[in-house]
Amino acid sequence: MQAANPSPRVGVIMGSTSDWPIMQHAVEMLERLGVDYETQVVSAHRTPDLLFEYAKSAAERGLQVIIAGAGGAAHLPGMVASQTALPVLGVPVESKALKGLDSLLSIVQMPGGVAVGTLAIGKAGATNAGLLAAQILGNQDATIRQAVEAFRREQTDKVLASPDPRSA
Amino acid sequence: MQAANPSPRVGVIMGSTSDWPIMQHAVEMLERLGVDYETQVVSAHRTPDLLFEYAKSAAERGLQVIIAGAGGAAHLPGMVASQTALPVLGVPVESKALKGLDSLLSIVQMPGGVAVGTLAIGKAGATNAGLLAAQILGNQDATIRQAVEAFRREQTDKVLASPDPRSA
Amino acid sequence: MQAANPSPRVGVIMGSTSDWPIMQHAVEMLERLGVDYETQVVSAHRTPDLLFEYAKSAAERGLQVIIAGAGGAAHLPGMVASQTALPVLGVPVESKALKGLDSLLSIVQMPGGVAVGTLAIGKAGATNAGLLAAQILGNQDATIRQAVEAFRREQTDKVLASPDPRSA
Amino acid sequence: MQAANPSPRVGVIMGSTSDWPIMQHAVEMLERLGVDYETQVVSAHRTPDLLFEYAKSAAERGLQVIIAGAGGAAHLPGMVASQTALPVLGVPVESKALKGLDSLLSIVQMPGGVAVGTLAIGKAGATNAGLLAAQILGNQDATIRQAVEAFRREQTDKVLASPDPRSA
Amino acid sequence: MQAANPSPRVGVIMGSTSDWPIMQHAVEMLERLGVDYETQVVSAHRTPDLLFEYAKSAAERGLQVIIAGAGGAAHLPGMVASQTALPVLGVPVESKALKGLDSLLSIVQMPGGVAVGTLAIGKAGATNAGLLAAQILGNQDATIRQAVEAFRREQTDKVLASPDPRSA
Amino acid sequence: MQAANPSPRVGVIMGSTSDWPIMQHAVEMLERLGVDYETQVVSAHRTPDLLFEYAKSAAERGLQVIIAGAGGAAHLPGMVASQTALPVLGVPVESKALKGLDSLLSIVQMPGGVAVGTLAIGKAGATNAGLLAAQILGNQDATIRQAVEAFRREQTDKVLASPDPRSA
Amino acid sequence: MQAANPSPRVGVIMGSTSDWPIMQHAVEMLERLGVDYETQVVSAHRTPDLLFEYAKSAAERGLQVIIAGAGGAAHLPGMVASQTALPVLGVPVESKALKGLDSLLSIVQMPGGVAVGTLAIGKAGATNAGLLAAQILGNQDATIRQAVEAFRREQTDKVLASPDPRSA
Amino acid sequence: MQAANPSPRVGVIMGSTSDWPIMQHAVEMLERLGVDYETQVVSAHRTPDLLFEYAKSAAERGLQVIIAGAGGAAHLPGMVASQTALPVLGVPVESKALKGLDSLLSIVQMPGGVAVGTLAIGKAGATNAGLLAAQILGNQDATIRQAVEAFRREQTDKVLASPDPRSA
Repeated sequence: MQAANPSPRVGVIMGSTSDWPIMQHAVEMLERLGVDYETQVVSAHRTPDLLFEYAKSAAERGLQVIIAGAGGAAHLPGMVASQTALPVLGVPVESKALKGLDSLLSIVQMPGGVAVGTLAIGKAGATNAGLLAAQILGNQDATIRQAVEAFRREQTDKVLASPDPRSA
Repeated sequence: MQAANPSPRVGVIMGSTSDWPIMQHAVEMLERLGVDYETQVVSAHRTPDLLFEYAKSAAERGLQVIIAGAGGAAHLPGMVASQTALPVLGVPVESKALKGLDSLLSIVQMPGGVAVGTLAIGKAGATNAGLLAAQILGNQDATIRQAVEAFRREQTDKVLASPDPRSA
Repeated sequence: MQAANPSPRVGVIMGSTSDWPIMQHAVEMLERLGVDYETQVVSAHRTPDLLFEYAKSAAERGLQVIIAGAGGAAHLPGMVASQTALPVLGVPVESKALKGLDSLLSIVQMPGGVAVGTLAIGKAGATNAGLLAAQILGNQDATIRQAVEAFRREQTDKVLASPDPRSA
Repeated sequence: MQAANPSPRVGVIMGSTSDWPIMQHAVEMLERLGVDYETQVVSAHRTPDLLFEYAKSAAERGLQVIIAGAGGAAHLPGMVASQTALPVLGVPVESKALKGLDSLLSIVQMPGGVAVGTLAIGKAGATNAGLLAAQILGNQDATIRQAVEAFRREQTDKVLASPDPRSA
Repeated sequence: MQAANPSPRVGVIMGSTSDWPIMQHAVEMLERLGVDYETQVVSAHRTPDLLFEYAKSAAERGLQVIIAGAGGAAHLPGMVASQTALPVLGVPVESKALKGLDSLLSIVQMPGGVAVGTLAIGKAGATNAGLLAAQILGNQDATIRQAVEAFRREQTDKVLASPDPRSA
Repeated sequence: MQAANPSPRVGVIMGSTSDWPIMQHAVEMLERLGVDYETQVVSAHRTPDLLFEYAKSAAERGLQVIIAGAGGAAHLPGMVASQTALPVLGVPVESKALKGLDSLLSIVQMPGGVAVGTLAIGKAGATNAGLLAAQILGNQDATIRQAVEAFRREQTDKVLASPDPRSA
Repeated sequence: MQAANPSPRVGVIMGSTSDWPIMQHAVEMLERLGVDYETQVVSAHRTPDLLFEYAKSAAERGLQVIIAGAGGAAHLPGMVASQTALPVLGVPVESKALKGLDSLLSIVQMPGGVAVGTLAIGKAGATNAGLLAAQILGNQDATIRQAVEAFRREQTDKVLASPDPRSA
Repeated sequence: MQAANPSPRVGVIMGSTSDWPIMQHAVEMLERLGVDYETQVVSAHRTPDLLFEYAKSAAERGLQVIIAGAGGAAHLPGMVASQTALPVLGVPVESKALKGLDSLLSIVQMPGGVAVGTLAIGKAGATNAGLLAAQILGNQDATIRQAVEAFRREQTDKVLASPDPRSA
């Protein structure tokens, strides 16, 4: 387990190391908001047994949210969700030919009874998966909630401080 | 406020009463899992002031998750998310011409910095929004967590009990 | 196990009994071509353990081809394929909002290394999954091969026998 | 306020400074046609309060048309329109993965009751937003109307003057 | 000319009488807001000469806004816009096979230099074309502006008065 | 051969009798314009040999244009075009799940070197295939050319005669 | 008039000089097949009067086929077709954001009564427009017909001569 | 015939040498798994006679699976399938404008009665076509079956051996 923190509360998994350039944005947000996390490559198709083991043991290992990123016929988020009662957030990674439309539909169109909270395709989605995980934890952890609020204020202030579009 | 429960923890809002036939499936799941909730029509376009007021007061009123359903150029979930640090779940309601593809993209493609956990288009998405809200609350409420686990077991057992596809 | 034949060589599975009106067309073709089969509801999301068990035991139980039908975020064919070396054929079942485009992309856009031979959306796809399974078995079973050839001749003859489009 | 003119009649706003390379084409057209304008970054998601304030005060500040550009789940034009009786024009900025199809649908598919006059995705749309704003003002301002007519004649003459496609 | 009013300020045209069930919603909104209008069938493909004559004479006949509705390869709005300096609003009428996606793209994706302010596909778009035309006229006509503001307040009040989604 | 005329100049073929309700509109237009034609079911997939024979003998049998209609993975128009130097017109028949988008792309996206002149999806496309075939023949046959011109005048006159959209 | 030949039989027009890199492939094919042609920029939106004049005079000037290329909301082919009884072929030029899907639908989805024979998006479509124009003329001109047949044989021979895919 | 092996069991064909950079991945997988194959350019549109000859003689020449790759209006896989009882696998090659969506739909949406097992767009699809062909042959050839199983184990082990996403 590639634990980046001693007692991770959020598991960030992805189907392939090639998803890391996108999924690192989830990790950056978690770090910014002070949320302990772990990261791991877990492939729905190449390591289905690991996927089951990961999902089934997640709650007892102390995880409270799982973020799963995948592209194309992206089965990882939904299959993790099928084996845990923890909230699962899905990040559609942009695919080469169909630009992530396949990834998005494969993740978001889950049947009633197994849910994946899906974010936007690519970097923005990964960033927001980290943010939403923190918002979820913020319900019970005042420090994280305040970090989220501070982050939100900061990005508001940043826009307000330079309202001239030519200033970019 | 159409509080269906004395101390609601989940707010279920929608852009129009015409979204109710879909959004009631979120409510049914919340009821099944024993989660207190409230429901209200809040239109991003027709009642923007109410939307702001609702979103800004949600946390202090005790809500912990907001579920927002809307169709077409669906701005409700994202605009609520822009004004609260609570986790927001979005349900794309099927639109007449484009069958909810517009609703889905309008909800899920949020920019980095403001997150909406998006569910499937239509009934399955509404059902899963209720489920995911309960999973989120389950992190801190053992009763709800057990209700989620029981629901999941039940639906597994239901399939296992009648594996013959002709039996429908 | 809903074995329709004493020693099935093709397993026809689907995510839900609601897929049966489509998937029965696979069964009809298999029966027409004299191929022994079994049918079963196996849900990737509601019965993941059963899915694993089914896929892992398929070869030793004597199956030689698996046909899997599912709709929406259709993970069944790909997840079965991830756990067996048998050829897996996928049938995208038409979904309500997106008309099976989501089902199709969720099944066909598999990453390199785990393959699903995908057929058309809906009834034609189910029919052809049965046909392709028979064509695969026909490589080693002359009776089936001849049944396939006879079926193909028949449908050619049927067109040739009534070339007048007004005759429908 | 980044007023580019002393008494602006058109407000050109956008969700982010990153939209400027597109939205500057609206400004160029306004300048060419002699229309006073102002520009400002107003983010629906990061600065919702500013958005409300901007939209609600626009008419009394003397604006007569608002041009709003945004990408992805583009909520800016519709949310501005929900809070002013001024005509609002929307420019879908091309998004990375879905090439502006998400931006377009998020802007144009408004529900009955709140209108956004939507232009094409990207540079052509921004140019035409400036032009359409001038056409609207031209109804009451002969100088602008004549500038529009002169611009239109000029572009006609330009094609007529070099009808050989090889001359580009 | 099917003038519904003695001195129409808005011309509502459409490619075919079959577009009337949609386009009548533009007319209803104009009537509600007290805007004088005329209606006429003008087909870009079947009556191109009439289209040219209509567009070229529109300004001198006193029109100030043209609303054009069409479906499929919808050329009417753009071709009208190419021959008048008046603002032109386009309504994509839902087509049979592609559900208005073709209509929308044919209207909105105009090249830089000739603008069409495009509304949503179908009834909502027609309604909003009437509303946007009134908003444009409202810049110079206080009665219309007040009617727009009253309409907007009314629809806000209607939501506020019955916030219970079950009340539909 | 289902020759509807003694010396047909246009061959109208389709993949299945189920395409007749659409393709009959091509025949109706040909009859209206006085063009001799023949009709036949020729399936690219079920009767490939017949398809080759039909295409290869078409010119020597006196045909001058071939109209081919098909749906789904519509290979008939392109495969006919690959085996004749006659102009081939393709009509995408609406498919169940994807509404003819698959039919359209399968017909129109031919590689450079083998051309199919493609018409709209469904009835309008079939009608126009008949019309375009007549226009092609009109280059060398004054009677047909005049019939085309008369038809075009008639449909213009019909619009001009009842310009009131409410008159439908 | 940019007549490339003394008595052109095919008119190749396009909305902008920027379409030339694509449309030149139509010209190359016409030259290869010995078909006299002319080329001209005719913009539906910027030079509507020229468009009408061009279309209305085309037949009397001796043209027998018109090839029209345009991108985005591509109105040129359909508007030319509305004013001539000559066969019109349309080439959808690839657009920046939507990759020519908008161009294709704007050209091909013509209503019944005015036909445009549509080719593929981009270079292949332009090439095939030239080829199809020659096929149409070949019905009455044996030299052109033989040139078409020779071209088709040549491209067949080219494939047959180097069947090894690695030889590219 | 470009036989890469003395007695090929899999035929790998493609519409053009330009498809080779994609289709070579099918060949690489076949080589890796020890499956004898042949490769050839066979164009549905430019060499239809060769296509028929190839398909009709395939079985008697000893082939047991045919892999066919093509792009755009991709007719090769379906037309081969129409003339052989062997299983045919289709690989949609990415097209320039529509990114392979046209290729995919042209291959997968076959009518009931003629089947093509379709793989993903592009490289992953070509790789998986090779893999699925081997899985089909593995039913009767233990060496190939074991090679498939070894390949699958290897790719599992590769993920397990480096579960750190940062290690790419």
